[in-house]
Amino acid sequence: MTATISDSSTPSPLRIGVLLFPGFQALDVLNVLSWSPTTTPPITLSLLSTTLSPISTLPPNFPHALSQSILPTATLSSSPPLDVLIIPGGWGTRAPLPEYTEYIRTVYPTLKYLLTVCTGGKLAARAGVLDGKRATTNKSDWEGVVRDAPGVQWVKEARWVVDKSDVGGDGKGTEVWSSAGVSAGVDLMFAWVESIWGEEVAAGVERVLEFRRWREGDVDPFVRD
Amino acid sequence: MTATISDSSTPSPLRIGVLLFPGFQALDVLNVLSWSPTTTPPITLSLLSTTLSPISTLPPNFPHALSQSILPTATLSSSPPLDVLIIPGGWGTRAPLPEYTEYIRTVYPTLKYLLTVCTGGKLAARAGVLDGKRATTNKSDWEGVVRDAPGVQWVKEARWVVDKSDVGGDGKGTEVWSSAGVSAGVDLMFAWVESIWGEEVAAGVERVLEFRRWREGDVDPFVRD
Repeated sequence: MTATISDSSTPSPLRIGVLLFPGFQALDVLNVLSWSPTTTPPITLSLLSTTLSPISTLPPNFPHALSQSILPTATLSSSPPLDVLIIPGGWGTRAPLPEYTEYIRTVYPTLKYLLTVCTGGKLAARAGVLDGKRATTNKSDWEGVVRDAPGVQWVKEARWVVDKSDVGGDGKGTEVWSSAGVSAGVDLMFAWVESIWGEEVAAGVERVLEFRRWREGDVDPFVRD
Repeated sequence: MTATISDSSTPSPLRIGVLLFPGFQALDVLNVLSWSPTTTPPITLSLLSTTLSPISTLPPNFPHALSQSILPTATLSSSPPLDVLIIPGGWGTRAPLPEYTEYIRTVYPTLKYLLTVCTGGKLAARAGVLDGKRATTNKSDWEGVVRDAPGVQWVKEARWVVDKSDVGGDGKGTEVWSSAGVSAGVDLMFAWVESIWGEEVAAGVERVLEFRRWREGDVDPFVRD
C-alpha cells in the first residue's frame, strides 16, 4: 500500500516547491525526484526566491568558495499553490531571511508535506512551524540550531525524522520530514518517494542513480556525543 | 603523502572546469569540492557551455521531467586554461554535442585531470580521448556506451576507474578518472579529493556532508551480469 496524493480518481499534479536563497546548498535531492515517475501523477516544480534573478550557492562568508547560480521559476509572492515545500540547507541559513520565514509560516497550513534538508530545518524552526514537533538537522551545526529553537523536539540520533502530529484522523494536515546533513537529505528523499509511490519506484531510482540508500531513519552513523 | 598540484612553493590555483549541456545531470559532485579547502591552494570553477545562456537539466526527450537551469560562467571558446575538466552525465549525452566533443579533444592534452561522471564517459569516449584507456560508465546505459566506443577498455565492475597511462615518468600528462552512474561520481570525487589534499581533508568533507563513502573503486554493488 502506498499513500495517495489525491482523493480523486484522476490524479492531480503533485506541486513541489523549493526555496532558493543566497548560499543555499545545491539540490542533490532533486535528482531523486527527477527520476521518479513524472507522468502518473505528474509533478510540477517551482524554484522560489524573492526575485527571479539567479540565486548563487555562494556562502556569503566564503567569497572564494565554489558556487553555481540557479534560476528561480517564481517569486515567493507569485508562488503557485503547493503540495510539498522543500527547504534546503546551506551557510545561507545563518542570515535572517525574513521573507522566507514569513513565506514558510504562511504556506505551511496549505501543505501536505514539508521537507527540510540539513540546516533547512533551522529556517523552518525560525518560522515557528516545528514548535512541539520532532525534527532533526545536521550534526556540524547542531548546538547552534538547537539553542535557537528550544520549542522543537530535536532528535539527535536520526538520519531523518517524520512527524505527523499535524495530520488529523481524516488524513488532512501537514507531514513534516526533516533530515540530518546534506547527504542524509537524499536518504530522506528516497524514503519519501517510497512512501508516496511505493518500494518498486524507489528501487528503480536507486538503480538508475546507483545510489546506496541508508534505510533506517533512526540510526545515524554521524551522531556525536 | 599527497599529490602536489604545483611544483612551485606558492601553490597555484587549481583551475576546474565543468561542461554544461542541455540535459546534463545536476552537479552533486560540486558539493564535495565546495567543502574542500578553497584557500591553500585556491580553486577556481568555470561552468562551460556554448553560450552564456542558462542551461537546463531538462532531458530533451522528457519535456515534463523536473529540471533546474544553471548559469554558465564562460563559453567553450572563451574558457580560461584548466587543470581539471569534469564531464557530467545525463540524458543530454545522447545528443551528438559536436562543440563539446571538439572542446574535450582540444583541451585534453593541457589537463592534469579529466573526471567523468556517469554517461559523461560517453562524451569523453566520443571525443576519442579514452581510446586504449581503462574507464567505466553507468550500468543502466552500459551496452549502448560500450558498443559506440569499442576502442576503450571498459571496466564493468567498477564504482570508479583511474587510468594514468598518459602520465609520463616526469609526472606530466593527464590522469583520467571515470565513474559509474550518478552517485558513484560522488565517491569518485571523494577519492580524488583524498588523492589531492589527503585523507584528513576528505574525512572532514565526509563529516560535514554526512556522506557515507564507498571506498573501493573496483567493487561495484550495481554491476549486472
